[in-house]
Parts: sequence; C-alpha cells; structure tokens
Amino acid sequence: MRPDKRMTPDEIRPMTIETGTLPYAEGSVLIGMGDTRVVCAASVEERIPPFLKGTGQGWVTAEYAMLPRATLTRTGRDGRKGRVDGRATEIQRLIGRSLRAAIDLPALGERSITIDCDVMVADGGTRCAAITGGWVALALAVAKLREAGLTARDPLRMPVAAVSVGIVMGEPRLDLCYLEDSAADTDMNCVGVPDGRFIELQSTAEREPFSSEAFMTLLDLASHGLNQLFELQQQALSQPIS
Amino acid sequence: MRPDKRMTPDEIRPMTIETGTLPYAEGSVLIGMGDTRVVCAASVEERIPPFLKGTGQGWVTAEYAMLPRATLTRTGRDGRKGRVDGRATEIQRLIGRSLRAAIDLPALGERSITIDCDVMVADGGTRCAAITGGWVALALAVAKLREAGLTARDPLRMPVAAVSVGIVMGEPRLDLCYLEDSAADTDMNCVGVPDGRFIELQSTAEREPFSSEAFMTLLDLASHGLNQLFELQQQALSQPIS
Amino acid sequence: MRPDKRMTPDEIRPMTIETGTLPYAEGSVLIGMGDTRVVCAASVEERIPPFLKGTGQGWVTAEYAMLPRATLTRTGRDGRKGRVDGRATEIQRLIGRSLRAAIDLPALGERSITIDCDVMVADGGTRCAAITGGWVALALAVAKLREAGLTARDPLRMPVAAVSVGIVMGEPRLDLCYLEDSAADTDMNCVGVPDGRFIELQSTAEREPFSSEAFMTLLDLASHGLNQLFELQQQALSQPIS
Amino acid sequence: MRPDKRMTPDEIRPMTIETGTLPYAEGSVLIGMGDTRVVCAASVEERIPPFLKGTGQGWVTAEYAMLPRATLTRTGRDGRKGRVDGRATEIQRLIGRSLRAAIDLPALGERSITIDCDVMVADGGTRCAAITGGWVALALAVAKLREAGLTARDPLRMPVAAVSVGIVMGEPRLDLCYLEDSAADTDMNCVGVPDGRFIELQSTAEREPFSSEAFMTLLDLASHGLNQLFELQQQALSQPIS
Amino acid sequence: MRPDKRMTPDEIRPMTIETGTLPYAEGSVLIGMGDTRVVCAASVEERIPPFLKGTGQGWVTAEYAMLPRATLTRTGRDGRKGRVDGRATEIQRLIGRSLRAAIDLPALGERSITIDCDVMVADGGTRCAAITGGWVALALAVAKLREAGLTARDPLRMPVAAVSVGIVMGEPRLDLCYLEDSAADTDMNCVGVPDGRFIELQSTAEREPFSSEAFMTLLDLASHGLNQLFELQQQALSQPIS
Amino acid sequence: MRPDKRMTPDEIRPMTIETGTLPYAEGSVLIGMGDTRVVCAASVEERIPPFLKGTGQGWVTAEYAMLPRATLTRTGRDGRKGRVDGRATEIQRLIGRSLRAAIDLPALGERSITIDCDVMVADGGTRCAAITGGWVALALAVAKLREAGLTARDPLRMPVAAVSVGIVMGEPRLDLCYLEDSAADTDMNCVGVPDGRFIELQSTAEREPFSSEAFMTLLDLASHGLNQLFELQQQALSQPIS
Repeated sequence: MRPDKRMTPDEIRPMTIETGTLPYAEGSVLIGMGDTRVVCAASVEERIPPFLKGTGQGWVTAEYAMLPRATLTRTGRDGRKGRVDGRATEIQRLIGRSLRAAIDLPALGERSITIDCDVMVADGGTRCAAITGGWVALALAVAKLREAGLTARDPLRMPVAAVSVGIVMGEPRLDLCYLEDSAADTDMNCVGVPDGRFIELQSTAEREPFSSEAFMTLLDLASHGLNQLFELQQQALSQPIS
Repeated sequence: MRPDKRMTPDEIRPMTIETGTLPYAEGSVLIGMGDTRVVCAASVEERIPPFLKGTGQGWVTAEYAMLPRATLTRTGRDGRKGRVDGRATEIQRLIGRSLRAAIDLPALGERSITIDCDVMVADGGTRCAAITGGWVALALAVAKLREAGLTARDPLRMPVAAVSVGIVMGEPRLDLCYLEDSAADTDMNCVGVPDGRFIELQSTAEREPFSSEAFMTLLDLASHGLNQLFELQQQALSQPIS
Repeated sequence: MRPDKRMTPDEIRPMTIETGTLPYAEGSVLIGMGDTRVVCAASVEERIPPFLKGTGQGWVTAEYAMLPRATLTRTGRDGRKGRVDGRATEIQRLIGRSLRAAIDLPALGERSITIDCDVMVADGGTRCAAITGGWVALALAVAKLREAGLTARDPLRMPVAAVSVGIVMGEPRLDLCYLEDSAADTDMNCVGVPDGRFIELQSTAEREPFSSEAFMTLLDLASHGLNQLFELQQQALSQPIS
Repeated sequence: MRPDKRMTPDEIRPMTIETGTLPYAEGSVLIGMGDTRVVCAASVEERIPPFLKGTGQGWVTAEYAMLPRATLTRTGRDGRKGRVDGRATEIQRLIGRSLRAAIDLPALGERSITIDCDVMVADGGTRCAAITGGWVALALAVAKLREAGLTARDPLRMPVAAVSVGIVMGEPRLDLCYLEDSAADTDMNCVGVPDGRFIELQSTAEREPFSSEAFMTLLDLASHGLNQLFELQQQALSQPIS
Repeated sequence: MRPDKRMTPDEIRPMTIETGTLPYAEGSVLIGMGDTRVVCAASVEERIPPFLKGTGQGWVTAEYAMLPRATLTRTGRDGRKGRVDGRATEIQRLIGRSLRAAIDLPALGERSITIDCDVMVADGGTRCAAITGGWVALALAVAKLREAGLTARDPLRMPVAAVSVGIVMGEPRLDLCYLEDSAADTDMNCVGVPDGRFIELQSTAEREPFSSEAFMTLLDLASHGLNQLFELQQQALSQPIS
Repeated sequence: MRPDKRMTPDEIRPMTIETGTLPYAEGSVLIGMGDTRVVCAASVEERIPPFLKGTGQGWVTAEYAMLPRATLTRTGRDGRKGRVDGRATEIQRLIGRSLRAAIDLPALGERSITIDCDVMVADGGTRCAAITGGWVALALAVAKLREAGLTARDPLRMPVAAVSVGIVMGEPRLDLCYLEDSAADTDMNCVGVPDGRFIELQSTAEREPFSSEAFMTLLDLASHGLNQLFELQQQALSQPIS
C-alpha cells in the first residue's frame, strides 16, 4: 500500500477541479490532487512583452509561488527578501512553456495571458497540478475572449496536462505524493497532449542514474495517468462555473 | 440599498470561517466577509527575533499579501520586484500589533507565532478580515501548544476582531464593501476586544476632515459590528476543525 | 514633573520653525519640538504619477527617513540594504495622506510636490513634527507657484498639523517625548485642521486596550495642542525666510 | 550541410578542453564546442550549507553566467539589476544536480565545491558544455584533495557529460549550434554517464509535441555523442595542466 | 570675480564648523564651506568587520548620502531603489580611506567608528567638506573614548583635511563652488596632513588632459588651502561643544 | 629581485594583447599583464542615456567585474546578492571616465559604446589593464563604425593607457603585481595619453602620507611605463584580428 493509502502503483490520486475560485479572474480553478491544492488564475491583459511588439502575436506566461504554510514547516515568503527562489523560477518557466504550447499565439492577437499558480497545500506534484489546472483556467479565459468576439479564430490548440512518475523502492509509480517523491530514485515530470505526444519531459536521477528502459516504463505509466487527467479537465469545463 | 444588496447601514456582510484550510499549519482558517476571502495561517516556530533573546518572552508577527488576481485587474506579485509594497507593509504592521495584543508574550515563552494572511478575493475590508480570521488561527495554534503542555499558563489573553466603518454619501455605514470604501468621505478601521475597549483605531478623512462627533458615531457602529464578530469567532472555535 | 522638565501634562514642548533651511527647495523648514529636529523640504516637479495622467490633477507625496545617528545608537541607513524599513513606509504614507488633504489637487494642476522629511534628532513625535513642519514647507512652495502665476486659484485649502498624545502612568499627556512614548499605555497621533476637525487619527494600545472615554479625553488634549501648533505655523509663515 | 559546415547529423562539433585556465582555482578548464566557449572553475571551500551541518556530508553546487557580450547583441550583466535571470537560475540548478551526481558526498566530507561556469562565447549548447567541462574541473579539484590526503576514499563516483540533440527541419541532429537550436522543433539536453545510463533528461517541444518514438531516436543520438565526450574528458585529464 | 563673489583664485570660501549638531552621536559637526552644508556624525560601536576579528585592531568607515533636495533639482533618495548610487559609493570609499589614515587602528582596539556624512546643501566640494568635518567628528569621538579610559594610548595620529582645486577658464583656482566645478577643465581633490604630505590625490581631466606642471601648480594651491583648514579644525575643537 | 622575477623597479611585466577574443563584440581583446588577464569587449548600441537625448552626442561607459575565481580564494559573484560591490563601482567609473576622454562624443553621434571588462585572473593592476586593453577594444569598435561609414569624422581622439606605480619597501616601482600592491606604502594609478599628459591620477597612501616629491618620482616612473604601453597598443592594432 502507498503512503497515502492508494493500493496500486499506477493509480492517480483523487483529483478535483473547482472552477471560478477567484471571481475577478478571466479563468480560475482550485485543483486538488490528493492533499495538494493549487489555485490557478488566468489574467488577460491587453499588452505584450517588448520583443513581440508589432508581430501580431500574443503571449502566455506563468508565475508560481507557495503560500508560506503550504509546507510542513513555514517557508519564507517568496520574493520578500528581494529575490525569487531558484526552484520557483525553474517551475514557473516550465509551466509557462507548457501552457504556451497549448495556444496558437498569432490567433491570440497582441494580448497576454498570465497564469498565476499559488500553492495552498504542497503534498507532491505541485508543478504538475499547476499545469493541469492552469490549462483549465487558460481554457476558461480563452472561452471568454471567444464569447466577446475578440479573436478571429480559436487560439486554443489542444489540452495540456502533466503528471509525475518515479521509481520508488524499485517500483515504477504514478503521481507521487510527497513521501514518495522524497524517497524516489528517479522522478520525471511529463507534460503531454491527448494524442500521446509530449510537450516537455524532465527526468532526474535523484540517487542512481537511470537506463533508457526505465525511462520508457515511466513514460508509459505517465501516458496512462495523463489520459485520466484529460478526461477530468473536460468534465470540469463541461460544468457551470461555481 | 447598499451596493452588495444589504438593506441597512448597520448590517455586516455574511461572514464565514472555515477552520483547518491549510492542514500543515498549527492553526488556519479561510474567512469570508461578503465576497472578500482571506486565508490565515498561524505558524509556531521555536525561535524569536534577536531583540528578545534571553527575555523569556515570545513574539507574534504577521505578513499580508494578495494573490495577484484577488483584485479586479491583475496586480504585480508582491515582492517579486525586490520590494514589498508600502500598503502591504502598513497593513501587516497593523495586523501584527493587533494580534500581539491578544497574547501574553511571557506566557508564550521563547517562541514565535507568524500569522500569514493571504487575500484570495479582495472586496473591501481585507485587513479587518485578516485580523478577525487571524485571531481564530492564532487561538487554534495556542490551543495546540496548550494540549502539548508546552506553556505553563494560557498565553491567550482575549479575543480580538476588527471591522471597518465609514461615512458614505453622508451616511455612517458598517463593514464597507469595495464600492463603498472607494466612495467614502471618511473611513475607520477599528480593532476591538469583547469588553468594548479598543486595541487600535485608524481613522482617515478621504475627502473632508471629520468631527469628533462623527468619529463617535462611527465608533458606536463599529462596536455593534464587533459584537457579532466575536460571536462568530467563538462559533468557529467551538466546531471541529474541517 | 515630566522627563524633559515640563511641569504640566497638557504642555507642548518648545517649538521652533526655521524657514529656508535647504535653499534650493521650493519650500523648506527645520522644525524643532523639544530636542526632536526634522528637516522638511517641498520639491515641485512638473510631472505626476501615471494614474493621474490626463486628469488635470496634481499630487502630493512624502518620504520620511532618519539620519543614522538621529537615535541613541546608530541605526542602519534606510534603504542601503535594498529595502525601506517598514516603520518608515508606514510613517511616510501617513505624512503623504495628511498633507494631500491640505491641497486642492485639481487647483494644483498636473504637477507634484514631494515633501522630504529627514529626521536629524529623534526624541519622540518625529512623524507629528514632520507633518506640522512639512505643511509649512508645502505652504511656502505653493506660495512660490502662486507668485509665479502658475495656478489659476489657490491650491492651499487649509493648515494641517499633528501632535501626539498618550496615557503615561495613568495620566493623559500631550506631546510625548521619547521616554514618555516608551512608557505609554496608549498613544495616539492626531492630525487636525484649525476648525477642530481631524484628517487622521491613529490610536494604538501599547499595553492595555483603551476605552472610548479615554479616547475622547486624549482627543480633547490633542485639540488643545493643535491650536498652539497652528499659531506657530502662521508665525513662521509671516516672517521673512531665513 | 549543417550551418557550421558539419556534414552529418550525428557529428559533434570540434571539442577542445584546455586545463588550468584560472590558475588560482583548484580545478579549471576552458572548454570549446565549435564556437561556444565556457570557462569552468572548481573552488573547494571548507564550509557547507546550513542544512548539511553535522551530517559529515559535502556539497557540490554551480553558478552559471554569461559575459555580456557572449551573445550577438549585448545582454545586461546578470545580477546587476538586483536579480538573477530566470534562464541562468534554471541552468545552474541543472548543472549543480548533474555534477552532484558525480560525487560521493559523504566521501567528500564537510566541504563544498562550487563550479563557476562563465560563458565567453555562446553559439548553442552552453549548458551542456558547462556540464562536460565542469566535470573535468571538478575531477581536477578532487584530485588535489586526494593528493593532499584530505579524503579517506575517492569522492569521484563516475564521469558525467552532457550533449544537446534536437529535431531540425524534420531531421534528428546531434550537438546543435545556435542556428539549429533556434530552428529546432524539439530539443533535448541529455546528461549521461559512461555505462549508457542518464542523470537528467530535459526534452522540450519548441513547436510541435513530440512522440515517444522521436524521443527514443534522440536518446540514441545523444548516447552516440556522449561516448565521444567521455573520451575527450579522459584525454584532457591525462595531459599535464597547461 | 568668482561666481560666489570671491575676489582671488587662491581664496577658500567662508568655513564654519558647529560641533554637537547630533547630540546622540559620540562626535558630530555641521560643516559649512560657502553654501555647502554637511552633517558629519561619528558613531562608536563595539564591533568590527569579520576580517578583523581577533586582530586586536579597530576600524573606521564612512557612509555618504545627500538629502534629496540638497541639489538644485530633487534627486531620488539614495538606496530607496534597492541600490546605492555609484557616485556615493566612490565618495564614501574615499572618505573612509582618508579618515582611516588619521587613526592608529591597533590603538583603537576592537571597535569601529562609522562617520556618516549627510549633505544638506550641495554647492560643490561636498566630499572635501565631509572629510574635513568628518575628521573633527572623529576627533571628538576619540576624545570621548580617551576620557572614558577605553584606549591605552591615543588612537588619533594626525589631522586630516581635504580641499578641491581645479583649472577654470585657464586659471588655477582653490576650493571650487558648484558653478566653477561644472566649468573646470581639470579638477583635483586633495586629502592632506599638516606636515604638507598627502593621503590621497584624485585628479581628473574633465575636458583636456593635464600636464604634470599644471598638476604641481594645483598641488601648491591645495597646500595653501589645507593649511587654513587645519587651523579652523583646531579652533572648532578648542571651543565647547554647542 | 621583484616577487614575479622582474630584475628592475622600472620594468613593466610582459604584456600581451590578443584581439578578437569575443567574436560577436564590435571590438574585443584579452589583455595580459604578467599573470593578470582581463577580457575587454566594446559593444556599440544605437541608444544613449536619457540625459543625452537630442544633443547629437554619443556616450562611452564601462562595466567591470571579476570572475568568482579570478582571485586566490573564491569571491561571491558580483551582483548576485542584489548589489554591486563598492570596489567594482569605483573601478568601472574610473574606466568609463578614462575611455570617454579618448572619444570625441559629438563625432560618435547618438550611439553608445559599452566597454565590458571581465577579470579572469587578478594578479594586481586589473583596473589599469582594463583601461589599456579597453582602449584597444574601443579603437577596434570605432574602426568598424568608420568602415561602415557611420560617422562623419573620426571619433577617436587619442590613445589612452594606464599603469600602476607605488612605493614598496621604500623603493618606487612600476607596474605592481599583487604581492607588491599588498605591501606598498603608497600606490598610484596613472591614466595617460601619448604626449605625456594625464587623464586621471589616483594616488593613495596605504600606510604613510606621501610627499609631493615622492609623488613626482612616481609620476615620472609611470610616464616611462605608459610609453611602452602605447607602443604595444599600436602593435596590437596593426595586426590582423585573431
């Protein structure tokens, strides 16, 4: 049995997506993966970064932070000491690249969408939850643009979701909780799309180097999990915003 | 009728306090005042600021921040530019002073409690909600210390709550929502205790100077509101943590 | 007898206002309240903050800092560590709001006046001295604008001054010096105008909560002190600039 | 033909490793991959991060920066504006994790090795060059510790090297130069060890999602390149330090 | 005639030194050179920089800043933007080196003296005034240490003073005011001691390179001025502190 | 014999100038003075600082930094802690002023040239090497502008070079290495031009004040050294860029 009571290694944690959590945002969700909770808010702004001026293209970017007490012990508030933590920087760049792939930037037009991902409770997999939930927030914001007739064609190219996999005590497991993540020999964050292809793979040997065979096993496990996440994303979008 | 449908000027908004929102914190709540939502988490740490070393006293402090999309338009993430916003600084100092008054610092012993107040939705009165909810989080954390037998006597001196009042279009009103706050001639934040006395009063003329008579009227209105808040705090504490 | 030799609790300290201290400033004073010394300089600039562009309105803001050796022991230079001290932030926001109330912003036109308040010696009441002296610097700067024919009507609405009051060893006292301020159960900073009304009241229980009666007693004491400050402001303005 | 005149897609660029470039460092190299030039310096210090105090373990970390004119147009000097660029943060974390895997941290003892990677010329693949060259600098520094008898057993576990691969105009290619990197549909940075296993894989779809088949093709190509890098590392170590 | 009414090129401006300006400092002066005004405060602290721990030596350092309205137009407050201005850094390093030379650091013992130099009015020569006045503040602070019997022998080695010289419209001039400084072809800051020797010379060609002959002429002129400054320093020290 | 094996006090260290080190820069050199190594890169940009807008003039500025392991022990990376080191600030201002003197700014037109000086190995005299090498980089960049026909007349006014001199164990010496610099009673950095005149002289008494006679001796020694540097600069420019 896994530390959070799951019975099989290829089982994802109970996932919940509540939409409309931050009512002022163009799109927002509270996503739960087991005990992990992340608020994702998509903000549409009629401005773009300087390097895109005059290109007709839009932009999608992300910011990631944790509430100080999302963790077992209190973590200093990100940014209050005049600099953003390296881990947060790395994660928000991953989220940004992943969600940018979901959008046809020329179709978006010269506007930007910022996805703010704020972790309320961190029990492993927060960056994956941020991508999976962030995509729903993004889709809601794009739907608003569409309803308002602000884009000539649909900027939403495809769903994007992410899941972590890893080898824990010799066993490949899907969707690691914090205790598993801490004990993993290898872990991988997989960002995928519904046709089975991937947007980004980041695989790290925490203890021992991993072989390409182990890598393929984990990739299969991730695909299995991603399929379920895509379904849950669609369910969330098909229901009225709470 | 008031902008958020309240019928009378001396009515507070519907208030909800959910406890246990951030399960790793020693005490935590999600407080709602109308549409305003603030997450308050109390973290106990076995260390104190340098100026208290060796005094046997403890410390209580607060940090206040808003999620970028707590507001109608996106606000840059506090601290990401290497400095904390002046408004946030002012507010977190008020929260810290107010909640410090609730605690017998020598009884707390040489440990500190940090109250993190993160605004999820800002519809006026966020600093008051942070104090009212922050006190509940603080009381929960102190109860944990008591249960663990870590303090010789009870460090909790008394309840503390806060409410805003103001004069809007000539009329004294209780618990201003954002639209009222923007239109107020004068507003006041009142931090009080159950016996009718006050911890802190901050009254500001936004348009015209105010007389001491107007001030007294607002003070009475605030007392009326505070009484209800103290009751709701006790109800929240009397129920099992969710 | 009070620690600085004053005989009665309702006596203000000797106050001096020297004008023209910083000859390049449009208006400047060196204000002394007992041993406290603050240099206040008003700078007129033909630019306004972005949120006022195109409104035809002007702006008044303040900055507050202490020389490192204004205090008994040396304090690190504000800002040299990449961040402004929280206390300074809170104080300069109070000064800014108070002096903004003295000005008819549309009459000022699209220009800004910055009041720099630099504390040379800190013996209590520095924020109040900064407001009282800052108003004189502001009035001098406005007079220069008037003489130059740069404003169609007078932007100066009314005098503004500030004084501290507090309860020290059970006794309500006016204009606390540092030793009294440190020992006060409650203190209040009152920013008022000559007709007896107030711009801002900030009352803080340092040890015990205070009642609304105690509050009213302090308010009366403050009014008594403010009346003297308004007279001294006028005297300073009626004399040639030194 | 490739933009830098290479004739085949599975050819690495000419690689040079000059040792002893920074004579004061415990280990240092100037590595060239085609036109890319990175100076890597290993500094041994008898101190460790706080979280390792008392564990008997050592630490390996990395810093990465570019000279302002390593690039076609001048880039602002990293850090001069009070914050480290997000890209640099992400890269130096990758280098640190990769080189940490090469070291038996308990065997290193309570000391730290910092690998400074400063890019002099950036023509693609700078992070991979930093890892490949950084490992040689690390090995030189460890050899010095060994000669001085400061470690009971050898802290060097295995060689580590890195290479980039990508799909450019539909063709899988090894060791991308800048022009290829900019045009790639997918690219991957592979950090490997001599037995064919991997330390870290980071694969990003720049234009289109990639399939697991494409991924495996790239992985094979990377393995082919890594084998050559391991040989060149050994050659560099076998020669006298210049 | 010179712009500030001086009749000859080798005349210094009227100099005044008021002692005891900041009563809490161990030594303090307000120095005036013409319209230039600098407050210098010496703070003795029983701590030293890490690199001197255990050497038995003391340290002298300086900080230099300008009030925002010391200048014709308002200058942003130094440090409020998270970094110290380059000019201030350069100047405070010069002041620190110059005043350090006046002190026998081993005789001072393991304590530090910080000289804070805050410019109230800047009409040229502020760094020289800061050194000349800073030395008096330093001497006063050392005298206090001597009176308290805290040093075995006198840490004060010799007087130090500074003056600017320059070539303005072809004419070598002593003690440049702001208008002369702006128009100078060459200027030099000379820090000297009473026996005619120098601590630091900084000579800069603002328009045209200067010859060693011109340099010697300026050096003589500076010596002439320094002699007068040393006398005025002694007069200031011989009078009771105001 | 001197610590680096030089036989006479008036001998400069072996100097090498390699051009074209950073191929993307408009001009670049790697300059060596004994063991000291500095990379200098000149970047031309079609923009100027705000205070020059509309004047038709150009600008020359410099940035100076050291690789962390340019020194015997590792130095924290400049700027990573949110502030630039005071020494670097002082040095880059000297380099900027010195090289600005070499350029006819109106002839340059409204563009700026930034000289980045990055010290790879620091064995004394790094600021002088940066100026001497920086001038060659600047001359190369100006030549490119001339070739491209972008300036109506030649912006290069004259060569500029710099050398250090000092009194070590009573003996005046030319071009101090690190060990001599640390032991010097007095040192001076001299920035000169070929006709024997100077751009900037900075002379500091490290232990004892120095006389004007000692100063003149050092100045002669510097002139002797500068003459050799000017020749080597011309040789470097006369050869094809490597």
